[in-house]
Amino acid sequence: MSTNQEIAEEAHIHGGLDIGGTKIALGLVDSSGHVLAERYFPTADYPVLKDAVQRISVEFSELCTQSNCQITSLGIGCTGQMDPEKGEVLNLEYFPDWRGPGLVQGLSQNLGIPVWLANDAETAALGEWAFGAGQGARSFVMVTVGTGIGVAVLQDGRLWRGVGGCHPEIGHHLLDPSGPECFCGLHGCWESLAGGIAMEAWAQSQNPQGSHFTARELCALAGQGDPLAQQAVERTAHYLGLGLSNLVTIFTPNVICLAGGLIESAAHFLPSIQKEINQGCKLVPSQQVDLRLTRLGSRAVMVGATLLPTLRSQR
Amino acid sequence: MSTNQEIAEEAHIHGGLDIGGTKIALGLVDSSGHVLAERYFPTADYPVLKDAVQRISVEFSELCTQSNCQITSLGIGCTGQMDPEKGEVLNLEYFPDWRGPGLVQGLSQNLGIPVWLANDAETAALGEWAFGAGQGARSFVMVTVGTGIGVAVLQDGRLWRGVGGCHPEIGHHLLDPSGPECFCGLHGCWESLAGGIAMEAWAQSQNPQGSHFTARELCALAGQGDPLAQQAVERTAHYLGLGLSNLVTIFTPNVICLAGGLIESAAHFLPSIQKEINQGCKLVPSQQVDLRLTRLGSRAVMVGATLLPTLRSQR
Repeated sequence: MSTNQEIAEEAHIHGGLDIGGTKIALGLVDSSGHVLAERYFPTADYPVLKDAVQRISVEFSELCTQSNCQITSLGIGCTGQMDPEKGEVLNLEYFPDWRGPGLVQGLSQNLGIPVWLANDAETAALGEWAFGAGQGARSFVMVTVGTGIGVAVLQDGRLWRGVGGCHPEIGHHLLDPSGPECFCGLHGCWESLAGGIAMEAWAQSQNPQGSHFTARELCALAGQGDPLAQQAVERTAHYLGLGLSNLVTIFTPNVICLAGGLIESAAHFLPSIQKEINQGCKLVPSQQVDLRLTRLGSRAVMVGATLLPTLRSQR
Repeated sequence: MSTNQEIAEEAHIHGGLDIGGTKIALGLVDSSGHVLAERYFPTADYPVLKDAVQRISVEFSELCTQSNCQITSLGIGCTGQMDPEKGEVLNLEYFPDWRGPGLVQGLSQNLGIPVWLANDAETAALGEWAFGAGQGARSFVMVTVGTGIGVAVLQDGRLWRGVGGCHPEIGHHLLDPSGPECFCGLHGCWESLAGGIAMEAWAQSQNPQGSHFTARELCALAGQGDPLAQQAVERTAHYLGLGLSNLVTIFTPNVICLAGGLIESAAHFLPSIQKEINQGCKLVPSQQVDLRLTRLGSRAVMVGATLLPTLRSQR
């Protein structure tokens, strides 16, 4: 008869942790990318790192007991700037207390397993490539459009990383210098023109006295025929299309996968995006670039994080 | 006593051919990237492919006789769109007769050796990475600014190629939608704002009745204090800097190498470029990205082409 530890090792159950700006999600994931059990809670409740480490540790222990298994490793996909080689959080907006190696070290100590850390756009790409919309793609670009825009690039399952293992910030490449100012230092980067926050800010700027609508609400209102909301959707789709055209021109990958809260309203955006790509990418075989929607949805970051131990990356 | 053939094989002498918009250059290159002998002649004289194949074959034969050696392979770096896997010219501006497999097949037949074909930005990158400014760089971006802008990307000596082996056209990524129209289909792609032709066109547009100056002449005039030429240089440097900032944001490579006719006036451009990168790339460790000038100069395309037989690429 096998012990639970032996079963876990045979079945390779891994912990996946998705630390986003809104929620922290964690789950048990098998080697085929199936989520066996999961939980989530609001990020905003945990500005103090040690409280977060404690809560995450307890949740994982409970999940493992409940599922009658053990995890042999933990992978974290975290918003913000990470040093994946040192396992350190470099910059997590609004949460200065999280900076440093404490997240990885604390969880490794509490759970007694090795812990890997990466940017959440990277783990989402790994997840979709291994188990979702990117399967079989030699070159693959994953674009997550939520409040902001996260992008990661894989070729042959190999993650493109910059100097020192950093995550390049493709979502902040310059697209239109006449655009609004962004915290990245530019006016008119892609995120400042096509992210969810950008969409909301633009709609508000057109009607400063009116109510503030979220991007999701604007998409719903556009569907109901509201003219301002329709303009906001058209403007966002236009800039999403311009940025995606740049990815087609720059990488001409086999597959681009779209995910994120804003993409859940894909019906509003896809025709305009495809039009921009057809118009703007005449020097490369853009019609061979396959534009796909996420198959893992909001679980991509968590599922992909469990692949970090096997990652082939580059500095 | 060894035959010449044996000496050539031992010493691995390769033929390199650079087919540019202005001139065709060819040379004998050893395994260390040294050019043993070279020749060039104007591209404009050879709109008919069979004449070009004949002239190139004769020049190579004469060079080999003169140098008392034989070449065991030929690599071609050619401007325009190529299919490197099929060895076909897809699109060579102004020279429709060159389209198809005739260039590779004709030279292979005449010279009796295997012939490889690639885009010239790619072979320039291979040359600088192996023997020039990119030596030792894990991730490497090569930018050639002449009449247009050619870019190629390597990681661990592996060339980034798009779907079907195509060469992505990074020089035509959108930078400012208010910019001039380009043959690529966009308004305000990088080349339309920062290439040599763009610089000349802008200067002419500011003084339509005045003489037409080349980019080289404008750089010289700027050095002599001419105000319009100085504005043209400043504007070009600004847009070169914005595009290079995007490459830093998108790839954050260990090294970016600058080459090409316009870069020969680097003193005019480098301070402004570095300023743009420092301002616009705050989310990535841009200070770790090493901006270097070409070491192979105008020979990079020819020297790099000789490496095509050993290329590790990706589709």
